Amino acid sequence: MIHFKPYYAVIFTSSQSKHTNGYIEMANKMELLAKQQDGYLGMESARDSLGITVSYWESLEAIKKWKQQSEHLQAQLKGREDWYNWYHVRICKVEREYEFTKVESTI
Amino acid sequence: MIHFKPYYAVIFTSSQSKHTNGYIEMANKMELLAKQQDGYLGMESARDSLGITVSYWESLEAIKKWKQQSEHLQAQLKGREDWYNWYHVRICKVEREYEFTKVESTI
Repeated sequence: MIHFKPYYAVIFTSSQSKHTNGYIEMANKMELLAKQQDGYLGMESARDSLGITVSYWESLEAIKKWKQQSEHLQAQLKGREDWYNWYHVRICKVEREYEFTKVESTI
Repeated sequence: MIHFKPYYAVIFTSSQSKHTNGYIEMANKMELLAKQQDGYLGMESARDSLGITVSYWESLEAIKKWKQQSEHLQAQLKGREDWYNWYHVRICKVEREYEFTKVESTI
């Protein structure tokens, strides 16, 4: 995923509580829903003791709309009530990027 | 970690190869070394099938110096040779942030 226009990243770091009931289903649902939003570019997630999800967006406006999307608001509420001990959201402008991909030797 | 000055995030997403020998030791060493660098603010990591490490810095200059730090250059080379199938680095300016912390009810 290489973008030549400026774009934005939302870094969501979180610590899950012991109340994980329904979390996986909601996370999957929100991922599918995010993909349908205008201005969505991509998402990357990893979790061990900490969870980090980074989503990528075309504009701050697209991020704002997604934050206010009605089903997503329900999920956020449920997240605060049940699933998370804490979370931290950072909205960032991607200034520069580079990537590496291994070319396997055939020798 | 709340900062009132603008600051920067480096999002490092990676896929590990099968060659993980020495990786954990080097990751721990690099985390300790990063903490000693001027302008370092913090670091968050999670790994499952994907690895995501986000480090936070006071300035683009601090990020550039850390990228060029000699022991870190060695680690980057070893990473490309052995440990990673691919990685993607995004250098971002944190534009806005907010956080949630649960206050447990005593009832």
